Amino acid sequence: MDRRSFLKTSALGGSAAAATTLAAPAYAQGNRTLTMVTTWGRGLAGVFDAAQRVADTITEMSDGQLTIDVKAAGELVGAFEVFDAVTAGQADMYHGADYYFVGQHPGYAFFTAVPFGMTAQELTNWYHFGGGMDLHDELGQIFGLKSFLAGNTGAQAGGWFRQEITGPGDFNGLKFRMPGLGGEALGKMGASVQNLPGAEVYQALASGAIDGTEWIGPWADEKAGFQEITQFYYAAGFHEPGAGLSLATNRDVFEELTPAQQKIIEIASAEAHQWNLAQFLSNNGSALQRLQSGGVKILEFPDSVWDAMGTAAEETLNQYMDDELYAQIHGSAMESMRSSSNWITRSEGVYRTQRDRILG
Amino acid sequence: MDRRSFLKTSALGGSAAAATTLAAPAYAQGNRTLTMVTTWGRGLAGVFDAAQRVADTITEMSDGQLTIDVKAAGELVGAFEVFDAVTAGQADMYHGADYYFVGQHPGYAFFTAVPFGMTAQELTNWYHFGGGMDLHDELGQIFGLKSFLAGNTGAQAGGWFRQEITGPGDFNGLKFRMPGLGGEALGKMGASVQNLPGAEVYQALASGAIDGTEWIGPWADEKAGFQEITQFYYAAGFHEPGAGLSLATNRDVFEELTPAQQKIIEIASAEAHQWNLAQFLSNNGSALQRLQSGGVKILEFPDSVWDAMGTAAEETLNQYMDDELYAQIHGSAMESMRSSSNWITRSEGVYRTQRDRILG
Repeated sequence: MDRRSFLKTSALGGSAAAATTLAAPAYAQGNRTLTMVTTWGRGLAGVFDAAQRVADTITEMSDGQLTIDVKAAGELVGAFEVFDAVTAGQADMYHGADYYFVGQHPGYAFFTAVPFGMTAQELTNWYHFGGGMDLHDELGQIFGLKSFLAGNTGAQAGGWFRQEITGPGDFNGLKFRMPGLGGEALGKMGASVQNLPGAEVYQALASGAIDGTEWIGPWADEKAGFQEITQFYYAAGFHEPGAGLSLATNRDVFEELTPAQQKIIEIASAEAHQWNLAQFLSNNGSALQRLQSGGVKILEFPDSVWDAMGTAAEETLNQYMDDELYAQIHGSAMESMRSSSNWITRSEGVYRTQRDRILG
Repeated sequence: MDRRSFLKTSALGGSAAAATTLAAPAYAQGNRTLTMVTTWGRGLAGVFDAAQRVADTITEMSDGQLTIDVKAAGELVGAFEVFDAVTAGQADMYHGADYYFVGQHPGYAFFTAVPFGMTAQELTNWYHFGGGMDLHDELGQIFGLKSFLAGNTGAQAGGWFRQEITGPGDFNGLKFRMPGLGGEALGKMGASVQNLPGAEVYQALASGAIDGTEWIGPWADEKAGFQEITQFYYAAGFHEPGAGLSLATNRDVFEELTPAQQKIIEIASAEAHQWNLAQFLSNNGSALQRLQSGGVKILEFPDSVWDAMGTAAEETLNQYMDDELYAQIHGSAMESMRSSSNWITRSEGVYRTQRDRILG
């Protein structure tokens, strides 16, 4: 089925329902508790923090009208079940990485990260000024969700390996954890790719069920303890150059809220996006130093590996083009990225190079 | 006078006043209009937009309890008079660039930008996770303000010149518009530096009162029309690598608000910081192309100029070190910058280089 056709029907129904709501506002009176399910283990560094941040901010700004009950993965539903739980109304909202839901629609990958795609800043540019936010909403209309970006990890590390990677052939047969379209691309390079929620990765690596893993970056990875098992850490990765996290509210629940409450959810999400990125980037520097001091070898992939990743990424990104909405999201994201990246390179890029040269 | 000593006395008084307020909350009942003065001409691209954004978001999230009446520069007070107007209670809040107020305290420079200082992302990291926000508040306690970052231009362009810059000697005697500590550094290179509010720069350049100017970046500069007068545009600059804009509320007014209203002002400001940066970066790419097509020469300063700028910047930043609070802000900002920049270079920096190499 062409999801775009489904969208058109669905959007029409949605508009009619919204019109009814507007004609006779049925705003919930008094205080209300909304249940938030997440794709994160309780306390998982950075990502669970983002979920808690947006929950707390909503409660504080609404003066307690909206209280958010945050559930870790497994407390109400499993990590990868949150999408269906919210579309079905079993929970009111989820916080998670939308690329876990490429099975529901491949376009969701762009609202976390795609291989050789946007950095965190480029994602923010696209979201607010390149049409990204509207396209996120078009996806949401299909599934009965109202989604906003609500966290970002920054550029993710290439990941943890048991031995040095000397060429693209080293990925052949490697059992590696990587979700989303990055994982699909790695599969094209011969890897046996697994998609595990964060809370399950350490055990899989320790038991040998996987040979290696990417997770997020030095701070979150150190807390997860991967340096206890593997010693080769690749700093830059191709797969998630600025991974966004999302808050998605059941659309019927969202439409029952007052316009002020809706705006509070939107703005609290955006604030968490910025705050969370700062949290990761502030903590990664010192964590990288600790890992290095502890004996971890910090490396970069050779150019031959980057080239193979580039080919696999392009092939992966192109294979969903017969879905009209995916093609639209892909085109919009890539156009925005190309348009904004040139100035960023010429201004901040040149500045950083000169600053590094002069300050040392 | 040692401003830190003043601070300690003032903070004590402030705490006592706050305690009284807490004991008998005097929250204003009903709806309230707050007057926001700004350092921006009405409609000035990006910067006035940031002021309007935060005003609108506050009104929407507070369900109209707080309406913000936004005044452009000159409508109630002049651009550079907003600080005194808000500390005196003549207006309730200002939106502006805090480095206009280095005369009130040199530490304010760090909350916009300092030469060879933090990029926009590094500023955000420092603000939320390196102590920057608390230090902004310490400054605010001295002057009776409650300040939050509420906009960002990104890395600013080196600026507009009537002829090519071939070495540091070309700045000798040059009449150039540049505010803040960047301007002071340029003065050390022999320039005759002028600090003009944005709305007055075009006329000064057209009349020959100044030989050149920096303003923001391609999009805002093109709208200001500088390409009609000068044809040499330097892309990267040393002076404002990620200029923050601030919203500062009169502290007595802020303390009269409910906790929810206070949180709304804080979060609306943070959201405007991210939104505004995306606005500038999304628009700069296409504006740069238009300027280039129109005949503007897009250049970078030679290394000899960057070296001279580095020396002048260090000298400028060090000359306020006998002020205890300035020294604390300087140390905190530089430590955070050093700590976070290494990972950013190794992850996103390496990724961007590989992406540019492979995607072309």
